[in-house]
Amino acid sequence: MTFVRLHVRRAGIDTYQQPVVYMRSDCHVCRAEGFEAQAQVEVIDDGRHLLAILHHVSSDWLARDEIALSDIAWTTLGATDGDLVEVRHPPVLESVAHLRGKVHGRPFTYEALRALMDDVSHGRVADIHLASLITLCAGDGLDVPETVALTRAMIDVGERVTWDETPVMDKHCIGGLPGNRTTLLVVPIVAACGVTMPKTSSRAITSAAGTADTMEVLAPVDLDLAAMRRVVEREHGCIVWGGNTRISPADDILIRVERPLSLDSHGLLIASILSKKAAVGSQRVLIDLPVGPQTKVRSAAAAEVLSKGLVTVGAALGLQVRTVATDGTRPVGRGIGPALEAMDVMAVLERAPGAPQDLRERALVLAGWVLEMAGRAPDGTGRSMAREVLDDGRALAKFIAICEAQGGLRVPPRASHTHVVVAHASGTVAAIDTRLLARAAKLAGAPRDPSAGAVLHVQPGDRVEVAQPLLTLHAVSPGGLHYALNFMRTQLPVVRLEADA
Amino acid sequence: MTFVRLHVRRAGIDTYQQPVVYMRSDCHVCRAEGFEAQAQVEVIDDGRHLLAILHHVSSDWLARDEIALSDIAWTTLGATDGDLVEVRHPPVLESVAHLRGKVHGRPFTYEALRALMDDVSHGRVADIHLASLITLCAGDGLDVPETVALTRAMIDVGERVTWDETPVMDKHCIGGLPGNRTTLLVVPIVAACGVTMPKTSSRAITSAAGTADTMEVLAPVDLDLAAMRRVVEREHGCIVWGGNTRISPADDILIRVERPLSLDSHGLLIASILSKKAAVGSQRVLIDLPVGPQTKVRSAAAAEVLSKGLVTVGAALGLQVRTVATDGTRPVGRGIGPALEAMDVMAVLERAPGAPQDLRERALVLAGWVLEMAGRAPDGTGRSMAREVLDDGRALAKFIAICEAQGGLRVPPRASHTHVVVAHASGTVAAIDTRLLARAAKLAGAPRDPSAGAVLHVQPGDRVEVAQPLLTLHAVSPGGLHYALNFMRTQLPVVRLEADA
Repeated sequence: MTFVRLHVRRAGIDTYQQPVVYMRSDCHVCRAEGFEAQAQVEVIDDGRHLLAILHHVSSDWLARDEIALSDIAWTTLGATDGDLVEVRHPPVLESVAHLRGKVHGRPFTYEALRALMDDVSHGRVADIHLASLITLCAGDGLDVPETVALTRAMIDVGERVTWDETPVMDKHCIGGLPGNRTTLLVVPIVAACGVTMPKTSSRAITSAAGTADTMEVLAPVDLDLAAMRRVVEREHGCIVWGGNTRISPADDILIRVERPLSLDSHGLLIASILSKKAAVGSQRVLIDLPVGPQTKVRSAAAAEVLSKGLVTVGAALGLQVRTVATDGTRPVGRGIGPALEAMDVMAVLERAPGAPQDLRERALVLAGWVLEMAGRAPDGTGRSMAREVLDDGRALAKFIAICEAQGGLRVPPRASHTHVVVAHASGTVAAIDTRLLARAAKLAGAPRDPSAGAVLHVQPGDRVEVAQPLLTLHAVSPGGLHYALNFMRTQLPVVRLEADA
Repeated sequence: MTFVRLHVRRAGIDTYQQPVVYMRSDCHVCRAEGFEAQAQVEVIDDGRHLLAILHHVSSDWLARDEIALSDIAWTTLGATDGDLVEVRHPPVLESVAHLRGKVHGRPFTYEALRALMDDVSHGRVADIHLASLITLCAGDGLDVPETVALTRAMIDVGERVTWDETPVMDKHCIGGLPGNRTTLLVVPIVAACGVTMPKTSSRAITSAAGTADTMEVLAPVDLDLAAMRRVVEREHGCIVWGGNTRISPADDILIRVERPLSLDSHGLLIASILSKKAAVGSQRVLIDLPVGPQTKVRSAAAAEVLSKGLVTVGAALGLQVRTVATDGTRPVGRGIGPALEAMDVMAVLERAPGAPQDLRERALVLAGWVLEMAGRAPDGTGRSMAREVLDDGRALAKFIAICEAQGGLRVPPRASHTHVVVAHASGTVAAIDTRLLARAAKLAGAPRDPSAGAVLHVQPGDRVEVAQPLLTLHAVSPGGLHYALNFMRTQLPVVRLEADA
């Protein structure tokens, strides 16, 4: 078939992670190929391929011999303005046929999942097929052998790191708990004890700050694997953003659809976590499971089931996994937002008088477990070893060294605008709504404005008097404060007071 | 929360059935509400609501106080240029939680399916949730009580027609077979016998012509329910497009995702067909199941299973269903494309010497069954009654009367450009690839250009000599012929010849 080529340009439209291309409905290619709006098409530019959804343009901002690309489509294709590109029907995805097999009761094999993950990781699978796959995995849709196969498949379609040192330790926290930045404390404590801990973290997706966002206000995190290796070889530990690597790349794409679909899958959750850990070369992993009504794990029983799955699948992959259920009913520390959380971390490292004790305590417990799992501390002595390393300043020194190795320690930015929210009555703090708190911090500008967010002045159980500060909002503009305050006025209270009788 | 309003205008972008709205990422509403690209938003214009996907615009074709709507979004909202609209987070869809219940093994109830179909029919359910629902229904995901409940739910969220006459007959054909336009023959034969048959048909979705497209070259089909009722009261029968009604409206939306998802579901298929039939007031339905390697029903065994489901679910809804498995291995008639198929129909009605006998024979068999099911012909005599009515011209007269009642009989258009494809060798026609044939007809312009398509000159089993015409392509421009010929040159042959030994 002869192909008519089109001139490519940017559309100036952000379609998030869904690549979209724009073509005139009356252009020769649409007519020749019978491309209807919302069809999937393949764009080829000098050997590079892009799969995208087609939208038809009928107005004059696009010429008949042009194709415009949305932001993600432009980046994915790596096009240059004016390139001549070819557009055609995408090849039939054979891997998608495995979904049909699973529908008809045939368990997924490694080969089927490998083919699927390969296509997923290359962006070849449409959202509706991803949704179908996730639905088939939802609940107990995957048994243990299928979960092991899925985890292996996710690892095998991406990059894999190996380390000369052993054991290589890791930690992970499942489900959001605002302010729970223990990673930035556990890594330097453990590394200061000479234990290897190359930590990759994610940026915020729906929260006010991810671990990578918080670390980024203190040091560069956008390192590639070679740079990460240099840091770890020098300092035993690092805290970098994992999104710059191709470590379990299918996982990020699945998460994009899993989140709005809101169907929990044990198998997918386990594969998501363990594939990242195994691919980055970790050998022993401690997993923090905050249990609470607004976290991913709602009950001790659910934590027990999930824990069993993680340990079993981990063992099949040669990963030693230990889980620890923690209190997920209240925010950790005081700050919510990248810089404000970073300040909590620095206060703990610097043993400042007002440093948040809950964050310090959680970090010591987790670091203690990691030191024991690594064989560095005898059983039952990990926490005290961790405390010693924190209290004598070795953890702080190690953290600064890691930051320097990653590109240089930075001073967290401070917001130019703040607003103090006070109690309208005296009483006792009954609860803090972690979801609404995160939302308010986001409306104030976090994590886009790293200095924006909220600082809590009270914790559940505290006694407050009328006009006493409950929290302070931070923003880079009056508009950010305005959005957050407007939101808080129309919602259930972020800080719920039980008034005096 | 205070809302900032935006001026609405058309984007001039066709996003098919997926409503999309375009807003500047730096506009006040996006900042205040935290709207990210690809988020679902609700647009409110003077009490009318629209749910749409948000795309962020960063270039200057859109102002910061404007919101632009894709074609389907514009039509759905019924907006007027410059209206001030409100944009907000859509209400949480409670119905979607039923998907989670089904994942965890709880069968769908009528109430759950009713809530889902209500949201589906109003366009409130995102594609990924539709894909999840379809996956849960796929294969044998729905048992008989769930299929009955789904069918009822689909009926109950739409309009429902009742008729004074009884019995009200209907026919349906499952799965595409190019040229199989028996409806245009069965309706006039049956109506000529005084039996009521108010037929609604669909337009082509992936084929070269739907029944409604073919009928439209002979008479208007775009009738509302009141107009349809007037035609049926006068002539006992009609053949109109069902898309102008709200008869089982959720079905069309599900089909849009089902098709690319390509997961068969017995329950969904049965509910799709029977909900339309019951809602339009039909009481007894004959269902044609063409069985062949390229049709929806691949084997006699599959036809048997599907047939049983249709009859059982139909009975639970008070519908008498009969199925008939027919030969689906070859195209029916000669023409492929609206006008070319209409000419075949007219040739049969007019008893022209060259009229396609296979189309005639299929129509007589089906009409005979309908007449027997209606109690008009004693068992075993339906086919001969049908033949009599066709042969003495009553069917033709009735067809003309129906066309006149629908708005006037039309002469099918003829294409201005044709190209004859000839045999390159002598031999025997082994097979005709119905999928490639439909694709070639579409590239020639069908169904957009009603006169475009293909006419077959041979049938499987025919002996052909070198240079003998195999088929003729019809198009309204040389371009259409060019596209179709180019396609045929690069594919497996549409007409497969077994060369002489």
